[in-house]
Order: sequence, then C-alpha cells, then structure tokens
Amino acid sequence: MNYAIIRYILGVVLKFEALFLCLPAAVGFIYQEKTVFSFLISILLCLAVGVALSWKKPENSVFYASEGFAAVSLSWIVLSIFGALPFCISREIPSFTDALFETISGFTTTGASILNNVEALSHCTLFWRSFTHWIGGMGVLVFILAVFPMSGGYHMYLMKAESPGPSVEKLVPKVKNTAMILYGIYTAMTLLEIILLFATGMPLFDSLTLSFGTAGTGGFGIRNDSIGGYAPHLQVIITVFMILFGVNFNVYYLMLCKKFRQVFHSQEVLTYLGIILASGLIIAFNIRHIFPNPPEALRHAFFQVGSIITTTGYGTTDFNVWPQISKTLLVMLMFIGACAGSTGGGIKVSRIIIMLKSVIKELFTIVHPRAVRKIKMDGRSVEHDTLRAVNVFVVAYAFIFFFSLLAIAWDNFDFTTNFTAVAATLNNIGPGLEKVGPTANFASFSPFSKYVLMFDMLTGRLEIFPMLILLSPVTWKRR
Amino acid sequence: MNYAIIRYILGVVLKFEALFLCLPAAVGFIYQEKTVFSFLISILLCLAVGVALSWKKPENSVFYASEGFAAVSLSWIVLSIFGALPFCISREIPSFTDALFETISGFTTTGASILNNVEALSHCTLFWRSFTHWIGGMGVLVFILAVFPMSGGYHMYLMKAESPGPSVEKLVPKVKNTAMILYGIYTAMTLLEIILLFATGMPLFDSLTLSFGTAGTGGFGIRNDSIGGYAPHLQVIITVFMILFGVNFNVYYLMLCKKFRQVFHSQEVLTYLGIILASGLIIAFNIRHIFPNPPEALRHAFFQVGSIITTTGYGTTDFNVWPQISKTLLVMLMFIGACAGSTGGGIKVSRIIIMLKSVIKELFTIVHPRAVRKIKMDGRSVEHDTLRAVNVFVVAYAFIFFFSLLAIAWDNFDFTTNFTAVAATLNNIGPGLEKVGPTANFASFSPFSKYVLMFDMLTGRLEIFPMLILLSPVTWKRR
Repeated sequence: MNYAIIRYILGVVLKFEALFLCLPAAVGFIYQEKTVFSFLISILLCLAVGVALSWKKPENSVFYASEGFAAVSLSWIVLSIFGALPFCISREIPSFTDALFETISGFTTTGASILNNVEALSHCTLFWRSFTHWIGGMGVLVFILAVFPMSGGYHMYLMKAESPGPSVEKLVPKVKNTAMILYGIYTAMTLLEIILLFATGMPLFDSLTLSFGTAGTGGFGIRNDSIGGYAPHLQVIITVFMILFGVNFNVYYLMLCKKFRQVFHSQEVLTYLGIILASGLIIAFNIRHIFPNPPEALRHAFFQVGSIITTTGYGTTDFNVWPQISKTLLVMLMFIGACAGSTGGGIKVSRIIIMLKSVIKELFTIVHPRAVRKIKMDGRSVEHDTLRAVNVFVVAYAFIFFFSLLAIAWDNFDFTTNFTAVAATLNNIGPGLEKVGPTANFASFSPFSKYVLMFDMLTGRLEIFPMLILLSPVTWKRR
Repeated sequence: MNYAIIRYILGVVLKFEALFLCLPAAVGFIYQEKTVFSFLISILLCLAVGVALSWKKPENSVFYASEGFAAVSLSWIVLSIFGALPFCISREIPSFTDALFETISGFTTTGASILNNVEALSHCTLFWRSFTHWIGGMGVLVFILAVFPMSGGYHMYLMKAESPGPSVEKLVPKVKNTAMILYGIYTAMTLLEIILLFATGMPLFDSLTLSFGTAGTGGFGIRNDSIGGYAPHLQVIITVFMILFGVNFNVYYLMLCKKFRQVFHSQEVLTYLGIILASGLIIAFNIRHIFPNPPEALRHAFFQVGSIITTTGYGTTDFNVWPQISKTLLVMLMFIGACAGSTGGGIKVSRIIIMLKSVIKELFTIVHPRAVRKIKMDGRSVEHDTLRAVNVFVVAYAFIFFFSLLAIAWDNFDFTTNFTAVAATLNNIGPGLEKVGPTANFASFSPFSKYVLMFDMLTGRLEIFPMLILLSPVTWKRR
C-alpha cells in the first residue's frame, strides 16, 4: 500500500470539500442565518487539514487497484466526517453519531434521516444536506478528476472504484474527458430540472434542493411530508427526472453523439423502463381503492416506483399502509435498483439481466450439453471477468446483507423493520417499511446499529469492494 | 426429450410407491383402523397405473442430463399426487390441494403442515406422513437405483438430479453400489435412533415416526406440540440425531473405511458443527431469561438450532416469541442449511464456504492483481464448473425466492410471514415466523399461494434445475 499517495488524495478531497461548503455558507449569508458560522469554521478546518495532508507531493507514484479502492473509500469516510461538522457545531444535530449518519446518508445518496422535524433546520443546513446528494451522486473523485489536474496514471482506478455497475466504460479515451462529459450532462440535467420546477411554480430554494436530491437519487426532502405537499404537476416533473437520472449516462452521451440506434437497443435501459411501467401499473391497480380516482393512483404509484427503483427515496404518500403486494413489489425494486452508470444504487438492472441470462444459459446447457452458448448483452458477449465480477458482487452483497440484519437485530425491532432498514441503506434508498417507513425515520436505532447502517450505506454506494478492502489485513502491508 | 424412458421410469416409481404404501397399510391393520381401506385403494391405483406405464420397455435408450432431470422432477410430482390419495380418500384431509401440500411437504422433507390438529389423524395416516420424510430424505430414485436392476448408463444422471450439493461424488465406482451404501448407512442410523428412543422410554409408534422425521430431516410431528411434550432426554437424543443426519454421508462412509484423518479435515463438517455451536451458545445466552435455568435454555437453543440448520423443523418451544436476535439467527440458519450429501436442505454449508472463499479471493486479487490463487476445499482446488454451478444455483435461488415472495403477497399477510413462509418451504424446513410460526401452520394461505409454496418445496428439495427444466420449452422438443 502506497500510503503517501492516499494521504495526498485525502488532502485534495478535503480542499474540495472546503470549496463545496462555501455554497451552503453563501446560502446562510443570503438568509442571514447564524448557522453560517458553523459552516465557516468547518471550511477552515477542512482547509487546514486538507492543506497539511496535501502539502508534500508523494514521491512514490506506484498506484494500483488496491490504492484506488482504498483512496476512494477513505475519501468518502473523511468527506463524511468533515461534512458532519456543520451539523454538530451548529447543534442542529447535537449527536456526532447522528450527524455522521445524516452526512453519510447524504453523500451516499441514501436519504435515510435521523431527523424528526427537518422543517426546524436552517436554510444553509438544508442546502448542505441536499447538496451532499448532488456531490455524491456522480462521485466526488469523478468531480475532482474532471476539474483538477492530477498527474499519474491512476485516474482509471479511481473512476472504477467510484462508478457503479459491473463494468466501467470510458466514453472517450481520456478518463479526465469522460469525467468532464459525465459532469457536464449531470449539471445540464440538474439545471433543466431546477428551471422546470421553478418555472412551474416551486420556490427557488425548494427547486434547488429537491433537484439536487433528484439528480443524485438521494431523497432528503426539506419538508416533513417529503414531496407530498407539492402540487401534482411538480410531483410528475420530479417523477420524470428521477427516472431520467436512473438511466445509464452512456445513453445520454450516445444521444449527444446522435447514435440513436444504439440508444434504442440498450437492453438495460429498455428493461429498466419496462420494469417501471409494469410495476407502476400493477401497484396503481392494487392501490386504486385508496385514492379517489385512477389518475391519482397512477401518479402516486409511478412516483413511488420511480423513487424506489432509482433509489431516490422521496415520498408523496405513506406506502407502508398499502397492500402487501405493492409493498413487496417496492421491496423487490429496492434490490433491483437503477441502471449501471447512473446516479442510482441497488444491484443495478444490468447485473440482474446478466444473472437472469446465466440461469437461462444453464438450463439450455443441461438440455444441450455440447452446445456452446455465450451470454450476450446489447449484441456483445459478456466477458468471463464481468460475469465473475457480477457473481462475486452478489455473493458479497448477500453476506453483508445478512450480517447487517443480524447485527441490528440486537435492537429488537421487528423483522420487517430490520430487513427493510438494511435494504434501504445497502441499496441507498432511504425509507423502508414499518418503523423505518416513509413517515418514520432511523432515529430510534441504537448507535451501534447506526454505525452498521452507515457501513451499509458506504458499502452500497461504493459497490462493496472498496469498503471490504479496508477490512482486509493484506491491504495494509507495505509493498 | 426421450418420452418413452421417462414414462417407463414413472411406472417403476409408482410400483415402488405401491410397495411403500404397504407399510402404513400394515400399521392400519395392526391398529384395526378403517382408514386402512383408503391405503389399499391407493395401492391398487398406484399398481394399476405403474404397471400400465412400465409395461412396454422403451426401445430408445438415449438418456442425457435433461432426461435425468425431467425424470426426477416428474417422479416427485407423480409420487406426491398418488401419495396424497390416502389423505383424500379417507377424508382426513378432504381438500386435494391441502392433501397434495401435505404430501409434497412430506416427500420433500419440509414438514410444513396445513393441519390444525394432527392428533386427530389415524395411526396409519400419521405413519405415512412420517414415512414420506424417510423416503424423500435420501431420495426415491436413489432407493430404486439401490434395489432395482435398471439397465442403461443413466444411473448417474438420476443420482445427480436427486442428490443435494454442488458436486455429487460417487463413493465407489458403481452408482448402484454407492446408492446401496448410502441407504445402508441411512437405514442403520435410523434404526439406531429408533432403538435409542424406544429403549429410553418413548412409545414404539412415536419412536418410529419421529425417527423417520429426524432421518429425512422432515419435521412432521405426531403431536400438536411437536417434540415439546417429550421428556428432556428424548429431546436431547433427537437433537443429536438431527445434527448427525445433517452431516455429509461421505463422512460416514470414510469412517466405515477407517479414514479418520480425512473425516477430521472435512471443512464442510467442521464449519457446520462450528456454526451450530456458535449459534446455539448465542441463542442460549439471548433467551436465558425466558427459561428457569441455563441447562434448559441450552437444551431449547440447541434443539432449535439443530432443527433449523438441518432443515428438520421439529420444535420444543415457540421460538416466535424469542428476542429478534435469536429469530434472525434462526432465519439465517434456514438459508445456510445442512451439509451437501446429507438429507438436509437449504443452500448447503459447502456452497456457503465456496462463496465466502470466492469473495476472499476477489479481495486478494484486487490487492495482488497478478497473483494466481485458486479456491480450495479440503486441500483440493474447486473446479471452475463447480464454482459456476454454485453461482448459478444461488442466482436462480434468489430469483425464485423473490418471485415466490411476490406471488404469495396477494394473500396480504405481513412481510415477515411471507418471507419466512418462502424461506421455510424453499429450504425445506417447515415452520417460519408469525403466521407460519412453530405454533401455527400453512392452512390460512389461499390455494394459489399453496401451489406456489409446493413448487418451492419441490424446487428446494431437487435443487432448482430439475424443476426449472420442466418450465423451459426447449426441454420438450423431440430429438
């Protein structure tokens, strides 16, 4: 392990965090809130530690996948610890554990909260909560790669460790340019949503924060009823944008390149949209008696389906009181998740497709043992390494899921609460069912359980191995 | 697909079923029960159809894996349909769906019941219920292979399709002799349990039926409180035998060959015993306040752990009222299951070990990308095909699990009930939690859900692919 380079990267990350914190501080100045001082103190702390860590450039530039994974996971941990400072210093979230939970939930775009009353928070704090979603959605190191001149051949390792999906593709030969294109699309779409929401009647502050939460597929609301209190047409706009941000960003790049044929043949995106359509219709049918008319049932059904499959976690209504079939379908969507290469979490539609195809292939092989059949995706063979990576991902995912379930069971909550709490954090969604349902929150868990769930949020966002590698003794040997 | 040979095998299976049914009929004669006539009618029906199907020997002896898989799964379905007849004819279980559920639950050694009051059943019916466990435990086709002269090279395919575990080993070069050895050990151990229970004070009828249920890791009791009403020392004997029947039978063969070194180095068996020890102690500690003294807590803890991990499903107490940590641990054990090559169900300890090692290998490979490291088990490399089979098994397992969960959600029971109902049937355990807990049963599910759960029981017992192949259109094309 090359410690010097990791120290240096952490320093750079902290300097960027100081920069990010300037935005909520500016909001605080505009609203003339006292909490702005807690942001200023945090900025100074980030700068001081960041400059100290990155003062000396590393001499040894050896950088492999393990350095990439460790750098990314440690960056996210450090980012969260310093990002929690404003909450603590302002006493808006007095407990450090709770503040850290909220921050990790923000950066990992989970949106699970420990706050009972978000409306009591100051504007700058609300802005920071939502802005962490936006930073975390596309990834902080991807951002740094896009704007900061870093030398050395380690860009791809950082990008791989931070980007979701079974195989990371570069859009263009240079990693830096890929990162710029991704952030360009991301920023443009976020701006479009802000403008649309603002133009159709949402206050500017709400448009900004809710768009950050949609873009990063985060889910922190700024009202206690999440999105429930906004006008129906605003809910529809948010539904559409949630679904759009769950699409593989490669598709948008293909669109920009006018390669529409490829866009319309993307199996992952078509499957993703198909699942949304089917689930939305089933749920709307299942909940039709709860709402006064079919359009309203459809609106709520598609909002919740879009919110859960993209792992955003906004809510317009309490789906915990829906019939079991709808709830079970939503729990399934939690696991499926959005497309690879989107800002959403979960297992990802492409992995589900590859797994389903591997089962079908197995059945075919039993009947035709001598036939050679390859698993294909979008017309191309899925490489053996990708298949192995998908399998080992799902296996590791299942182990972490069950160990977390057991660990938080000490709190003695019911099975459904625990199961959906782990599902909602490991898949970066936010709300679950029962005691962590849309109208409840994670405040009642013990500190131990909260740390387990924080681990799950980070593990889910970084797709397991960057976090697991921190726990493996072999990582920490000096080369 | 060679239809003629499958027809022939089904005929042989039915003739054997007629033979099996003679035993409960004999019990009926001894107890002079009227229900004996329903058994006699069933015997005649099995014989008639069996003789008709196997009258003409198949000319075409082409037999591949797909024929083996289809023959096994169809045999189990036919066996269950005819095995349900005595329940229906005697009107002890008037509904055919319920009778089929009970029979499939018996043969698949699940032990999930739709009966509210088993004590109302006649002796011959109780005997048949328990005897189906014994037949299903080691496998009906393995039994036929052991005693019936079948020509053709298709023994291994049948054995492979019916035996649990990621890779089926022949103990001796001939499949027929392997089957004989397995049934020899199985019978000897069952007799030993019967004698021990009977000698230490259990009535003969109870000793027989409960030993059948233990040996097959089934779980049908003959009293409404399962094993709860028997003396503590009898519960301890059953605990020990449940655990013994969950051990890979290869180990017993190695013992007979005096290869003790290999026995003590079996990673699967050691892990299995380690999990039992650890879980038993944790649960005993967790439930210590429920029972008057530590030995009693230990007895109940180890009974339940042994019962669940071996997927037997007997109970001595209602673990649904235990604290969440104990319940969650038991749910985890449901998935782990017993050793491969035992009579138990679940994912199997060896698969869990292989999966865990594949995750550790992945972590190692990230840190040392150029190092070649093979996954080993008991000192031997795990072959690529075995690894692939484990992965595709788990993936298919997860898909079936979630689809079943969704399908039975129409009944609108709570999530915990549904989740554990699927877990308890797919892993061939029996009881789950809440509405399917140890003091409840599966009677309240709709017929549709019951058929879904029957499918799960068969799919779990036959390890997925023999059942899935029935649903695949490519299977049914004539060669």
